[in-house]
Amino acid sequence: MADRVVSFDNPVFASYAAYAGLASMKMMGMTLVTVYHRITKNVFSNPEDTCFGAKEKSVVRLDHPDVERVRRLHLNDLENIPPFLVIGFLYVLTKPSSDVALWHYRAFLACRLLHTACYLAGLQPWRGIFFFSGLATTLSMAVQVVAKGSL
Amino acid sequence: MADRVVSFDNPVFASYAAYAGLASMKMMGMTLVTVYHRITKNVFSNPEDTCFGAKEKSVVRLDHPDVERVRRLHLNDLENIPPFLVIGFLYVLTKPSSDVALWHYRAFLACRLLHTACYLAGLQPWRGIFFFSGLATTLSMAVQVVAKGSL
Amino acid sequence: MADRVVSFDNPVFASYAAYAGLASMKMMGMTLVTVYHRITKNVFSNPEDTCFGAKEKSVVRLDHPDVERVRRLHLNDLENIPPFLVIGFLYVLTKPSSDVALWHYRAFLACRLLHTACYLAGLQPWRGIFFFSGLATTLSMAVQVVAKGSL
Repeated sequence: MADRVVSFDNPVFASYAAYAGLASMKMMGMTLVTVYHRITKNVFSNPEDTCFGAKEKSVVRLDHPDVERVRRLHLNDLENIPPFLVIGFLYVLTKPSSDVALWHYRAFLACRLLHTACYLAGLQPWRGIFFFSGLATTLSMAVQVVAKGSL
Repeated sequence: MADRVVSFDNPVFASYAAYAGLASMKMMGMTLVTVYHRITKNVFSNPEDTCFGAKEKSVVRLDHPDVERVRRLHLNDLENIPPFLVIGFLYVLTKPSSDVALWHYRAFLACRLLHTACYLAGLQPWRGIFFFSGLATTLSMAVQVVAKGSL
Repeated sequence: MADRVVSFDNPVFASYAAYAGLASMKMMGMTLVTVYHRITKNVFSNPEDTCFGAKEKSVVRLDHPDVERVRRLHLNDLENIPPFLVIGFLYVLTKPSSDVALWHYRAFLACRLLHTACYLAGLQPWRGIFFFSGLATTLSMAVQVVAKGSL
């Protein structure tokens, strides 16, 4: 069938899938940044985890600033990326123009990557600008999904 | 094709999409409530964020009761809304009756909105009742999805 | 249509749906473990919640080790299971061989269950091994999804 919507033959779906995959990988990658800081700073959240750090210097500590910054960033991803993954898919079903959809997906991923860079570097108000731009992209798609749905 | 399931032509899918969009917007809206409390109370989680608060009164503080209440509520959304979004979609594919499906979606969204109101107002045991009712709605759909799937 | 992909008639989709449902139920079940510890240990995160605990012994406390361990485990689920739910679905659309897909889903769920057991028992490095194996399973699917999509 030429007009199948949920298929890699549909350019809008193929774009969605690529950006959804990359956004998921970016979110899961935050774990590795946390692990890197835990091991290099020797701070862990469970007593049994101290086996991964330097002997005698590894401690259980829940307030190391570098680790907690990455964890807040990761939590911010959890608040924003899963809704994008689902709304982005439902948006494909509203049959948007291919270009408009592609730029929604690109804008979202670019905002999240720039938000991440600004969070790690401590740059405000840029972090806030990229955060709200990413949120606005998802909201724009969500409004169109709700408008086409039935309550 | 008249019987396409994943399409806004299918009333069950159209209902799911509308409630999924609203539930996502509700979850993302929690961010704005957090921002509102941070700015009006002048408490922030990163040193660079204090530029958004009143001069000389803005502090980095991770234990302000109003802010932390909203953040616990937001975390509770993250624990419940993403599974609903995915399970609700898979439930569409089990081809439930249109009415039964619609009431599952309505019950879930109503429970989450009432849970939010009760959390912000500090009302127990109502908050617990709406929490478990929302969880039961998702579980009811999940059981039907697993029963129709193959392990 | 014999070749419909997003349908319980497609064995890959039927497997995905079953494992996605089980993974969601496992994640939502963590709430019940938290509630169990809160009530048996009489520690709560909101003043109004103390009505559920033993009189005069119930306190608001955010650092009880048993409760916080379950909450860290739950957060780890939130970081890993929602991406699996979405990526696992997009992977179905790449039309993988039925066996390969089934083992991806089985491996992921098994890793998360073993990770949970090891977290509750405080077993390292086993918890780390199961954590990274689960992450690798999702990444393997995500790479195939991105490769088939278009940027």
